[in-house]
Amino acid sequence: MTDESRIWTAALIVVGDEILSGRTHDKNIAQVATWLGVQGIRLREVRVVPDVMDAIIEAVNALRVRHDYLFTTGGIGPTHDDITVDAVAEALGKPVVVHPKARATLEEYYATRGGLTEARLRMARVPEGAKLIENRLSGAPGIQAENVYLMAGVPQITAHMLDGLTGLLEGGLPLMSTTVGCWVAESEVADLLRTTEGAFVNCQIGSYPFFREGRVGANFVIRSTSEDEMMACAATLSEGLTALGHEAVAGGI
Amino acid sequence: MTDESRIWTAALIVVGDEILSGRTHDKNIAQVATWLGVQGIRLREVRVVPDVMDAIIEAVNALRVRHDYLFTTGGIGPTHDDITVDAVAEALGKPVVVHPKARATLEEYYATRGGLTEARLRMARVPEGAKLIENRLSGAPGIQAENVYLMAGVPQITAHMLDGLTGLLEGGLPLMSTTVGCWVAESEVADLLRTTEGAFVNCQIGSYPFFREGRVGANFVIRSTSEDEMMACAATLSEGLTALGHEAVAGGI
Repeated sequence: MTDESRIWTAALIVVGDEILSGRTHDKNIAQVATWLGVQGIRLREVRVVPDVMDAIIEAVNALRVRHDYLFTTGGIGPTHDDITVDAVAEALGKPVVVHPKARATLEEYYATRGGLTEARLRMARVPEGAKLIENRLSGAPGIQAENVYLMAGVPQITAHMLDGLTGLLEGGLPLMSTTVGCWVAESEVADLLRTTEGAFVNCQIGSYPFFREGRVGANFVIRSTSEDEMMACAATLSEGLTALGHEAVAGGI
Repeated sequence: MTDESRIWTAALIVVGDEILSGRTHDKNIAQVATWLGVQGIRLREVRVVPDVMDAIIEAVNALRVRHDYLFTTGGIGPTHDDITVDAVAEALGKPVVVHPKARATLEEYYATRGGLTEARLRMARVPEGAKLIENRLSGAPGIQAENVYLMAGVPQITAHMLDGLTGLLEGGLPLMSTTVGCWVAESEVADLLRTTEGAFVNCQIGSYPFFREGRVGANFVIRSTSEDEMMACAATLSEGLTALGHEAVAGGI
């Protein structure tokens, strides 16, 4: 049974020179964060590290002991720059072994695609004792080694792996959110935001300004594990904005 | 004079609950990474941390001593959840003071926009001894405190702040890159990638697979500080792909 009073936390390591060079816009942070939220697990920290063994090992060791779950994305493919399995194994003090079920899955997948080469067999390597995470898209599985969950770098594949994990991780109450938008400079309503947040101890209000259509505006996101308090906080904020002469847009702009 | 033989490195801290909740897709990592690359500075690590004082302080202290430059994005606005200035000041052991020039800039900016309120004056607060980074878009400046550069969370504003810093930071040789694309499963050419990279000691090859139009393909990105070696490596890789019966697409797919 899930303990709903405890807060479950996770961290994410994004492995990839392509993110650090600016060439690729990361899509996994938002994807993993959103999925974790639905599982009742809070993403508390993300680190983006290069395809360098020591950098990955250091991040894994720093984060796996601090959080209930540690996710990684990237670096589990068949090429020479895919070293996440080796780095996680090293961090956990385990040897790398070929997982028989992963090997069988890959043999089947590649039977009609040119066969299981040595490079492809790399994708069956796991830290000793690890479990597999199903991936119906491309054959190569994700990996669970202790509390570390290794996902693909390609966002569509990671989506399938997360799907395979849905409902299997213990979590707490999901953090809900609702948004109130307003065509106002956030600096005009900073006092209102602070006092409203102060009046609802189980709510947080984030203020996210933007420029759109040549005008300034902001979305105010109210987060809480209590839907009742969240809605009461949103209503109080909307009334406050109206009292200051601004139109509050439920759901955000 | 720039020392071109030395490698200059940077780290980035993205401050923001909105990224960790999955609500907002970060755009600053790629933007800052690309800009740094042009300045001849390598982005080596990114951390995304929540709007929590201790989390920001810890990340600032871990990263500012490891790298030539540390950038932050987010948390320098006028609202209660904007605490990056306070956290950086604490990490540097400096008091927070109102910067006279920032105050004057904000007074002028808000003269026709309702005046400089207490909330807006928050945006003139800096760690003692800090310099300002110009922002022609919205009045509120970026901040340089020692080797820490505080940028806005709104990507358009950060773009203006980076523009204000262009050419002012010391860097080394820019890392160049060129891409060779191929409609091939990366696992089919893993050996070719490894041997080609091995033959060019000053080049790195990253392999980035994708699914598109119902087919698998990959882009192979060759990075080097030497344009000649980079182009020779790309040519060797393209010839190798052709020899294996695949079409190499210069510039990537």
